[in-house]
This record gives sequence, structure tokens and C-alpha cells, in this order.
Amino acid sequence: MQQGIHTLVVVGVGLIGGSFALSLKRAGKVQHVIGVGRTLENLQQAQGLGVIDEISQNVASVASRADLILLAAPVGQMGRLMAEMAPHLRANTIVTDAGSTKGDVVALFRQYLPQHLAYCVPAHPIAGSDLSGASAAQYGLYEQCKVVITPLPETLPAVAEQVTALWKSCGADLHHMQAEEHDAVFATVSHLPHLLSFAYVDMVAGKADAERCFDFAATGFRDFTRIAGSHPEMWTDISLANRQALQAELVRYQQALNTVQQLLNNADEAGLTKLFGNARKARVQWHQKFIRKA
Amino acid sequence: MQQGIHTLVVVGVGLIGGSFALSLKRAGKVQHVIGVGRTLENLQQAQGLGVIDEISQNVASVASRADLILLAAPVGQMGRLMAEMAPHLRANTIVTDAGSTKGDVVALFRQYLPQHLAYCVPAHPIAGSDLSGASAAQYGLYEQCKVVITPLPETLPAVAEQVTALWKSCGADLHHMQAEEHDAVFATVSHLPHLLSFAYVDMVAGKADAERCFDFAATGFRDFTRIAGSHPEMWTDISLANRQALQAELVRYQQALNTVQQLLNNADEAGLTKLFGNARKARVQWHQKFIRKA
Repeated sequence: MQQGIHTLVVVGVGLIGGSFALSLKRAGKVQHVIGVGRTLENLQQAQGLGVIDEISQNVASVASRADLILLAAPVGQMGRLMAEMAPHLRANTIVTDAGSTKGDVVALFRQYLPQHLAYCVPAHPIAGSDLSGASAAQYGLYEQCKVVITPLPETLPAVAEQVTALWKSCGADLHHMQAEEHDAVFATVSHLPHLLSFAYVDMVAGKADAERCFDFAATGFRDFTRIAGSHPEMWTDISLANRQALQAELVRYQQALNTVQQLLNNADEAGLTKLFGNARKARVQWHQKFIRKA
Repeated sequence: MQQGIHTLVVVGVGLIGGSFALSLKRAGKVQHVIGVGRTLENLQQAQGLGVIDEISQNVASVASRADLILLAAPVGQMGRLMAEMAPHLRANTIVTDAGSTKGDVVALFRQYLPQHLAYCVPAHPIAGSDLSGASAAQYGLYEQCKVVITPLPETLPAVAEQVTALWKSCGADLHHMQAEEHDAVFATVSHLPHLLSFAYVDMVAGKADAERCFDFAATGFRDFTRIAGSHPEMWTDISLANRQALQAELVRYQQALNTVQQLLNNADEAGLTKLFGNARKARVQWHQKFIRKA
């Protein structure tokens, strides 16, 4: 089962989809890559760079030739793409994705490909970057990169295993989870911080003395707000796709801030030092582990 | 008036105080530096590195020889230090500091050196770093570094000018502000983000699934939480010293989060995209300016 596949269709040939294609090619796990996208120029660039071998602007016209389809398009387009490919899939065509949220993708698979769930494998490669477009595709992107697979109860184990094996051949570090568990974890460690950073910069920018504030912002501000430079539409999609888990995290954080506010109101020196100390200890431990793995 | 000074007393010979001494020595603006501190080993190291020329563990015993005293000790020690030096100051000894908050230092000057205010110059070099101790002192620290001076109404203009000139000879970029204005600006761009990042990491660390969350935290988390690795006692001091302005910023941020929460509850796609877009635009503009200056 682990011999790789002949034809890969990548819908959305950017950093994520393009790097998947390149890595599988290098590993000899795929013979032919068809890139599907809306922007012909990007697809032509991808073909010129050897990321894809064939261009299509319509997934319906190439789905029947695919052994595996990777949906690396924005979450907002996934439903439409699934609907378009549905009539053309072969019985054993594997359909997987690279979305940052999984509960919503599971729901879309159930809605648009209800007869095909045995071959559907929701997945999330944790490889964010500011780069985008075919020119961002790179061989090494998935080396030691975490990829979370959240198979459906209906997904055939051998199919989940084949997707796992393909990602491993890209150098990735594979993890299996339930979709709900995935979404809760990423609401905590990724989606909430983005929301907090966006809200913070928007607040500062709205102040009467915003210009003066920005003038004196330094490296702490720089790092805390880096993720507020992320793509607004993409993060709206993610926030709404993972709304339930994110709402819960936001409530939890508001409670955490209320605690800090009480400590501050009470000038509770010991309480503040304890909270800051807890945070520092956890952050230092996390960072040491993170560096070792990086 | 701008010829420099003969004897500089630096209380707290670490990154900030030590670098000030080194930079003034290199610029030929000071002839003799006395380092005051509690840890003899650190002072001996400083002397060995040429950062200071003489060691003292008691500011009272050397204050009478100082032309300028820089208080680079933690805010919590400043009142005691001022009380100790008060009886020994010459009429024209300049006293300045390097604290991150200024309203509290102004209050301490008024409390402990009420007869000496003409020669008191509160100041804040914006040169944070994880490094500490005499070995962290470096010549170049203040090159293009912002330094904010918040003179009292009683401070003689010529005295404020002399402190300004000394910092400029270290390569610093000088700014004059009112203490209240300084504290409001830094509550916004530095103290609030620290509080938010500490509160966030403490919250994650307290979750039942903390370990799993930390396992999947990546570069966004890394940057957003870097400042949560800061020194707990130092940030307790700063938070309490600038409590009033920080409380106001915290309330403002809680309102900003309530707005985000409403948008999320209403699944307001356009509203979220607008807020995220505002933040991104401000952050990108800020960063371009920040890089140009760096």
C-alpha cells in the first residue's frame, strides 16, 4: 500500500500545496502532478519551476485522473471544490486537505462527499509562513514539520496510513487526533494569539496618541504583534471555521485578564510575581524544548 | 556646560548602567567611574572589564564625590538609595535614573530629594535586553537608542541639557516628555503587551491539556510569548509603578476584546476582516518604519 501514487492533483499551488508536490517528487512517491488554480500566471510559474507537470483551471476536468487530490485552497472554497469534483472521483481516489481547522473540513466532507468518506483524510501540516504563491514552494518545508491527521470514523485505516506515509516521505512528523481535539489545541496555541494580537494592534492604532505610541514601540512590541501582520481574509476564515473552540478560548482568556486586573487593582505584588513567574517558567521550558526540536 | 563630568557614580552596574559608563568613557565625557552595588563579585567583574574604576557598596560613602549619579537599580530600591545619598550630595550634583516608569521616580525625587529637584533628571533609555550583569555592558548599546527625559518643572534647563548631551554623546536619540505622557505611552506599547503575554502563557499552562497544547505551539506562539519569558519581579515592579496607566490600558483592551467577541458571536465576516485588516495595515506600516530606523 505504501508505494506512492501515480497522479497527484494539487488544488491551490502555493507554499503548502507546491511544497507537498515538490517533496513527493523528490522522494519518488509521485509520477505526475496536476496543478489546479484560478490564476493562470501562478500555475504557469509553478510549471516553469517544476512544481507541477500539468495545468488545469477546473478540478472537475482532472479529478477522474487523480490517485490523490490535495485541497490546499482557502477553507472558504473547499465546499465548492468538493462539489465540483464529486461526480468525477474514482471509487478509490484519496481526497485530503491542508486546512488549519478540521471540524469544518470534516463537515464539508460529510456534506459534499458522503459516499466517499472511506477515502477522505482531513489533515493539517503546521507550516505557516508569510510567503505565498508557487514561487514560495520549497523541497525542505516539511522536514521535521508536524502534520496532524484527523481521520473520520469512516476513513479506511489503510487510506489514512497511505496519506501518513506520503507525508512521512516529505520528512514530516505525523500525529493522529480527533478533529475536535485538533481544533481545541489550535484555538489555544495559534488562533487565540492571532485574535489577541490583531485586537491589540487595532486598539493601539485607534488611540488618539497612536502615532506617538508607535514611535516608541520596540522589540517587545515587534514580536508580540508579528502575527497581527497575517492575512486578514485567511484569519477571518480560520476564526469562523473554528468559531466554537475559539469562543471558548476567548472567554477563558477574558477570565485570565480579569484575574490580572484584580491583582493589579489590589496592588497584589506577591500575586503578580507568582502569575508572571508561572508564565515565565512555562515559557522558558517550552522554548528550550522547541529549540531542541527545531 | 557640555564639557562632560569628572566623576560618575553608577548605582547598579549591569547592562544599562555599565553601558552608560563605557559609552561615556569612550566619548571622553567622564574621567572616573565609581560603581555601587550589593554584589561584590559583579562589581569586581565590572572593574576587571574596565567598566568602572572604583568599587563601593554604599552610595552614602561616595555620593559627595559625584558630579552625576545614575540610578540604574530596580525601581523598588530607588527610594532607599535616594534617602541614603541625600545628606551627602553636593548642591550641584546631578541625579538621574534609568527606570522604565517615570511618574513613580518623579514622586520619589519629590519625597526623598525635595531640596535637590533643580538637579534631578528622570530618564528612560529604551534598551531592553535579556542580558544582565556587568558582563552584559557594551559600548554600542545606546547607538540610535531612544532615551526619554522627563524633567521636573523644577529641573534647571541647563541641567536637563547636560544630561541630554551626555546621552547624545553615547549615540542616543533624545526625546523630552512629561512623566505622565511617558507612562501612558509605555503602558500602551510595552507594559500592556507584557501583561497580556504573561496572562496568556499562564492560562495555557493551567489547562488540563497544557502539555499537548505546548507540543503543537509553533512560531506564532514563540513570538507572541517571547516577552512572557521576562523577569517576574522586574515586571511586577513596573506593573505596580505604572499601575494607573496600565489599569486604563487593560480596561481599554478588555473593551477591544469584547468587540472581537461580538464579531465572533455574530459570525460577522466583514467586521472581522475589517478589524484584522486595520491591524495588519497598522502593523505593516509600523514595521517598515521600525526596520528603516534599526
